[in-house]
Amino acid sequence: MTTPDRVHPAWLPPEAFRAIGSRRTLVLGDGLLAETVHDEVAQASARYGGSVRRAGDGPYDLVLALTTAEALPGVAGEVRPDSAIGDEGYVLARRDGVTVVLADEPAGLLYGLFHVVRLGERAFAGERPAEHHRPAVRRRMLDHWDNVDVHPVMGQVERGYAGGSVFWRDGAPRGDLARVRAYARLLAACGINAISVNNVNVHATEAHLLTDRLGDVAALADVFRPYGIRVHLSVSFASPVVVGGLPTSDPLDEDVRKWWADVTGRVYDTIPDFGGYVVKADSEGQPGPFAYGRDHADGANLLAEALAPYGGVVHWRAFVYNHRQDWRDRSTDRARAAYDHFAPLDGRFRDNVILQVKHGPIDFQPREPVSPVIAAMPATRVAVELQVTQEYTGQQRHVCYLAPMWREVLGFRPWGADGSDVADLVGGGDLVAVSNIGDDPYWTGHPLAQANLYAFGRLAWEPRLDPVAILDEWIDLTFVPAATGDTERLRRTLHEIMDDSWRTYERYTAPLGVGFMVRPGHHYGPDVDGYEYTPWGTYHFADRDGVGVDRTRATGTGFTGQYPPPWSEVYESLADCPDELLLFFHHVPYGHVLRSGSTVIQHIYDTHFAGAEQAAEAGRRWEEAVGLFDPALHARVKDLLDEQVRCAEEWRDQINAYFFRKSGVPDARGRRIP
Amino acid sequence: MTTPDRVHPAWLPPEAFRAIGSRRTLVLGDGLLAETVHDEVAQASARYGGSVRRAGDGPYDLVLALTTAEALPGVAGEVRPDSAIGDEGYVLARRDGVTVVLADEPAGLLYGLFHVVRLGERAFAGERPAEHHRPAVRRRMLDHWDNVDVHPVMGQVERGYAGGSVFWRDGAPRGDLARVRAYARLLAACGINAISVNNVNVHATEAHLLTDRLGDVAALADVFRPYGIRVHLSVSFASPVVVGGLPTSDPLDEDVRKWWADVTGRVYDTIPDFGGYVVKADSEGQPGPFAYGRDHADGANLLAEALAPYGGVVHWRAFVYNHRQDWRDRSTDRARAAYDHFAPLDGRFRDNVILQVKHGPIDFQPREPVSPVIAAMPATRVAVELQVTQEYTGQQRHVCYLAPMWREVLGFRPWGADGSDVADLVGGGDLVAVSNIGDDPYWTGHPLAQANLYAFGRLAWEPRLDPVAILDEWIDLTFVPAATGDTERLRRTLHEIMDDSWRTYERYTAPLGVGFMVRPGHHYGPDVDGYEYTPWGTYHFADRDGVGVDRTRATGTGFTGQYPPPWSEVYESLADCPDELLLFFHHVPYGHVLRSGSTVIQHIYDTHFAGAEQAAEAGRRWEEAVGLFDPALHARVKDLLDEQVRCAEEWRDQINAYFFRKSGVPDARGRRIP
Repeated sequence: MTTPDRVHPAWLPPEAFRAIGSRRTLVLGDGLLAETVHDEVAQASARYGGSVRRAGDGPYDLVLALTTAEALPGVAGEVRPDSAIGDEGYVLARRDGVTVVLADEPAGLLYGLFHVVRLGERAFAGERPAEHHRPAVRRRMLDHWDNVDVHPVMGQVERGYAGGSVFWRDGAPRGDLARVRAYARLLAACGINAISVNNVNVHATEAHLLTDRLGDVAALADVFRPYGIRVHLSVSFASPVVVGGLPTSDPLDEDVRKWWADVTGRVYDTIPDFGGYVVKADSEGQPGPFAYGRDHADGANLLAEALAPYGGVVHWRAFVYNHRQDWRDRSTDRARAAYDHFAPLDGRFRDNVILQVKHGPIDFQPREPVSPVIAAMPATRVAVELQVTQEYTGQQRHVCYLAPMWREVLGFRPWGADGSDVADLVGGGDLVAVSNIGDDPYWTGHPLAQANLYAFGRLAWEPRLDPVAILDEWIDLTFVPAATGDTERLRRTLHEIMDDSWRTYERYTAPLGVGFMVRPGHHYGPDVDGYEYTPWGTYHFADRDGVGVDRTRATGTGFTGQYPPPWSEVYESLADCPDELLLFFHHVPYGHVLRSGSTVIQHIYDTHFAGAEQAAEAGRRWEEAVGLFDPALHARVKDLLDEQVRCAEEWRDQINAYFFRKSGVPDARGRRIP
Repeated sequence: MTTPDRVHPAWLPPEAFRAIGSRRTLVLGDGLLAETVHDEVAQASARYGGSVRRAGDGPYDLVLALTTAEALPGVAGEVRPDSAIGDEGYVLARRDGVTVVLADEPAGLLYGLFHVVRLGERAFAGERPAEHHRPAVRRRMLDHWDNVDVHPVMGQVERGYAGGSVFWRDGAPRGDLARVRAYARLLAACGINAISVNNVNVHATEAHLLTDRLGDVAALADVFRPYGIRVHLSVSFASPVVVGGLPTSDPLDEDVRKWWADVTGRVYDTIPDFGGYVVKADSEGQPGPFAYGRDHADGANLLAEALAPYGGVVHWRAFVYNHRQDWRDRSTDRARAAYDHFAPLDGRFRDNVILQVKHGPIDFQPREPVSPVIAAMPATRVAVELQVTQEYTGQQRHVCYLAPMWREVLGFRPWGADGSDVADLVGGGDLVAVSNIGDDPYWTGHPLAQANLYAFGRLAWEPRLDPVAILDEWIDLTFVPAATGDTERLRRTLHEIMDDSWRTYERYTAPLGVGFMVRPGHHYGPDVDGYEYTPWGTYHFADRDGVGVDRTRATGTGFTGQYPPPWSEVYESLADCPDELLLFFHHVPYGHVLRSGSTVIQHIYDTHFAGAEQAAEAGRRWEEAVGLFDPALHARVKDLLDEQVRCAEEWRDQINAYFFRKSGVPDARGRRIP
C-alpha cells in the first residue's frame, strides 16, 4: 500500500489558513487557550504575510476577543452577545470590513478561530449579521481503545484499523508528543473537548495508568490542554485489588471507598483538569460490582463519589449482556440486556455518573434501531456512544461515510414526531465515540475515513447539521485549499463516492437490519452463519422457510415493549415496521412482501447485486479522478477501493448463495448466483 | 485442570520392569545401544533385586546377546536365527528355563529388550519356540511441528495440544535433556527410530537450525542416539536465500547446488548419523521450486543430491494444493491436487527422495478415503503420513483412539482384495506421523492420548496388529504394573471408553465422510459453514435439497478416476460407494437411501444423537472407575470427558439444527432439534 513520507495534515493543511494568514488580526484575551489562538494566527500570518496586531494598532481585518477584554475596538463592542454564551460559545459577525469573534471564555475564541478557518475567504467578504454559536452537546468525547501493551489478539489498538497507537507503543508511552499535538489541534478544529486515552478493556499494564504510571497520562494531558481537551482514563473496576493490593473491590466496602478517594485525590494533584473515569464493568469478562452482589448503581456511585469533589465524572458503559448465551435458547435476547439491567436503576445514579449507551441495542451494526435505554432513564445522565472506528462498517478498507447513520440516530424521536429527539436527550450532556485514528500517515488508514472523525466532532457540536454539508466542509478544508485542478469535479467525485456509501455498505452486507453476518473474531468480511451457533447472542435464525429475529411482544422476546409508543407499536407490527429494520424485529418467510413491494428474498438479491455494483462504480469514479488528488493519496485510496470491490463481491456472492441454497427461490431477474 | 507433580512415566513405569529386574540377566554385545540395554537391565535389577551377569557367570534367566558375540551360552547357540534378521530384528525364544533374545545388531537387542518388558512375567514362563521379529517398516518416524520461536498464532507447537515443546522454548533450546531422554526411551519402547525436531512450516529463526544453530540439533541427536533414533530436520526450500545470502534458491542453479552440498557436509561433520531433511514446499505459503519455474522433482532432487553421499534422505511432502481457491468454482477439487501434482513425476525422483503423502487426499479428517497417490507412483519411494496429534479428532480434549482408523488405512487394498495393501506399499519404506506430545506432565495433555503415540509406533513396526491388542499392550504397560485395584475392571473400562472412540467421534462430527465442519483456524468444535465460502477448498455444498461433493467422473470433478479399479468404479457408483464415504464422493438429496437402509438426513440425526450419547456414556464409565486409577490422572481425564460431553452435545445440536433448518425434514423419532 502506498505510504507518503510525512504525516498527512488532514483537515488542517497550512493552505486552509491562507485567508486568515494574509489578514491583520487582533487577538485580545489572556489564558492558555487564548495563547493557542494567538499562536495559530501568528503561524498563519508568518506564512501568508499577514500580521497579529496589538490593541490600538488597527486597522484590523479580524478581531478575536474575549468579551471581558479591555480595549475592545469599537466594532467589537457593537456585536456584543445578547447574553452569556457559555464557556465554549462565541459570536461571529462582520461589520464595516471587520470580522469579529467574541467569546466569554478562551475556549470560545479557539472554536471561533476554527470557524473562521472553515469559512476561509468567505469570512472576509460582505457583511455578516451576528451569529451566536454554542455547542449543543456539552462533552464531545472520543474514546481510544488503545492498549499500552500489545494485546496478543487485539494488538496495540483494539478494533484499530490505522496502525499502532499515537499514544503508546510496546508497553510504554510513544513519546511522539508532536504527533499528539497535531492530533489535539485536529480535534479542537472539529469541536472535540474530551478524550479517554486507553482501552475500556483494561488489561494488567493499563491498570497502572491510574497509579504508578499516572505520569504517562499527565504528559498527554499537557499536550491536549492548550486545545481545550480534557483527558479521561479507562479504569478497571478491580483496581483496588489489581493495583491497590486490597482483598476486595466491593463498592460498599469502606477501605475500597477510601482507596478510590485517595487515588483520585492523587490523580487531581497531578492533573488538575482531569476529566474522569470510563468504566466497562461486568461486560465481556471485565470485572464489576456483580462479583460482590452489588448492582451497577452501587458500582458507578463508588467512583462518582471519589470524583465529585473535583468535578470529575464517571462514564459507566451500559454495554452489559450475557456473552455466554446458549444459542439454543430463543427466549434470551441480547437486545434487551442494557434496558433490563439499567432501566430499573433510573434515579439511583449520582449526578456525576454518565451512563454511556451504544446507539443501538446490539453492537455498532450498520443498521440497528436506536437503543430504547436512551429514552428510558429520565432521571439519569445518558451519553450516546457512536463508533467512528469502522469495526462493522468496512474497517477503514471500505469507504463508509457514517454521518448519515449518526444523523438518523440523533434525529430519532423516541416518542414520535412531536417529542424530543436523541440530540435533545443528550443535549447539555455527552456524545461519545470510539476513535478511528492510529499512527498511519493518513491518521485513519483510509484517507477518506478522516471524514468520519471530522463529522463526529461537528455533529457533536451541532447535531442537526446535514451530513452532505459536513462533507462539503471537510472537502473544502482537506482538499480544496491545496488543490490545483478542477475543484468542482473533485468535490463532485467525493460526494458521488461518499454521500451514499453507508447505504451502499448496508446493501451488500447483512440484509434488512438482521446484523452480524461477519467473520467471527476480526469481524471483517462475510460469514453468514459465523455467529449463528455461538454464545454471543447474535443470531439471524435463517432456515429453509424464512429469516429474522422475532422480538415482538406477541410471539417473540418482547423487546419491542422496551420502546414507548408509537415505536412499541410500529416495531411490533409486521405491516408498519420499517423495511430496513424488519429482520431485527420479525422472523418472516422469504416470500413476505416488504413495504417496498419486493419480497424479502428478492430484496436480498437485488440489494446485493446493487451494492456490489455501486462499490464498483465508486472504484471507477475514483480512477477517473486520478489527476485531482495528490498521487500518493490517490494511489492509497485506489488500492483500498480495489479491496472494497473484491470484498463487496464476496459479500454479494456469499449472502446470495447462502439464501439461494436455503430458500431455493431463484432470482426473478435471472442473474448468476454461485 | 489437575496436574501431577512429576512427569508421568507413560508406558514405561518402573513397575513394568519388575519381571526383568528380579532375574539374572546376561547382556552380551558392544556398542552404544548394547550399553543402553545393559543400563536398562542394571537399573531394573537395582530396583527389584535381580542382577546383570558377566559371560560365564551363569546360570541366567535371560540372555540378551548379539549373534556375533563370543562366549554365547549354549542355549543361545541353539536358538540362532535361520538367516540374517536385519539391523533391527531379533529372535526371541525360551528353552530350558532361559529366555533368549538374539540380534545381529545392537538395535535389535534394544527392541528385543522392550519386547521382554511387554511380556512381563509371561516372558519367563514355560517354553517359547523361536520367534523372528523384524519391523515391517524400515523408517518409523515422528514429525514434530515444534517451533523454536513462539509463533504468534500457532504458539510453540503448531497444532500442539499438550503444552509447549520439549525441545524448544521462547526461541532457544529448552535444555531439559533428561526429559528428552525419557521421551527417546518411550519412543524406542514402541519402535520409533527417526524424528524430525522442528515444524515443517519453517519460520525465520528455525531456518538457522541448518547452519549457525546446528549445535542445537546436535545436542538433541546425542540424546536420541542411545535409543536408536536418528534426527531429521525440517528445512526451508529458500534456505540458500534466507540463511545463505544467495540471490536465488533455484534448484538448477550451480551455486545453489554447491551451497546445499557444503551445508549438508557440515551437517554430517557435526551429526554423522543425521537422518535427512523434511520439506514442505510450495504449500500454504512455504517457498518451493515453482517460484523458479521448476517442478517438485527438480526441488527434491536438489536436496537428495546433497544428502546422498552420507546416506541421508529427503522427505518431500506431497501436501501441495491451491489454498486460494475460489469457492464459487466447483471444478477445482483440492482432493485431486496431490495426484495431479505428483503422479506425472513418477520415476523422476532420486532414490533417496521419499514422497511423504498424507493418508487421505484432504487433511487428516476423521474419515477420508485413502489417498490415490499412494498407489499411483510405483517408481517412487512413498511414505504415508498419519497425524497422531488430534488436530481434527478432538485436540486431545476428546478421547479418540486412532489405531482403528490407521489400521483401516494400512489395510486398504488399492487394487482390490487380491492386491497389496498400503502396509505392503510402505513396507521397507517409511511410515511417518505428526507427534502429539508436549511439555505437559502427561506428555499428551489427555492421558489417554498416550495410547495413540504408542499405537503409531507399534503399527509402524507391525502394521497388521489388531488395535484392540495394541490397546491391551498399552494398558498392561501403563496402568496394570502399578495398579492396586481390580485390573480386569480397569482394562474393561478403558476398552469400553477407547475401542470405539474414533467411530463415536465420527458419529457426532461431520457426517458420511464430508469433512471440514470445524471452526476455522483453530479447528476445534463445530461450524458447519465455517469453511464453506473460504479459499481453502473444503466444502460440503449443502443446500435445501441435499449435501455432498460430486467427485465422480460422470458429473463431478473426476477425482474417482485417480483410483485404479475396482475403487474407481466403487466410488463412482452411488449404489456401491461405502456409506461412510458417500458425501466425500457424491452430492445426494437428503432423502437418498443409504446402503444401511436409512436416509441421509435420518442417518445424520441418528448418528449425532447416538454419538453424543456414547460420549456421555464414556463419561459415566470413567466416573464409575474412580478407584481404579491414580487420583490425579482420574481427575484430569474426568475434566476432559466433561468437556468432551459438552462439545459432543454442541456438535450434535449444531449439525442437527443446521440440517433441519436447511432440509425441513423432521426427525423420524421425534427428538428435540434446536
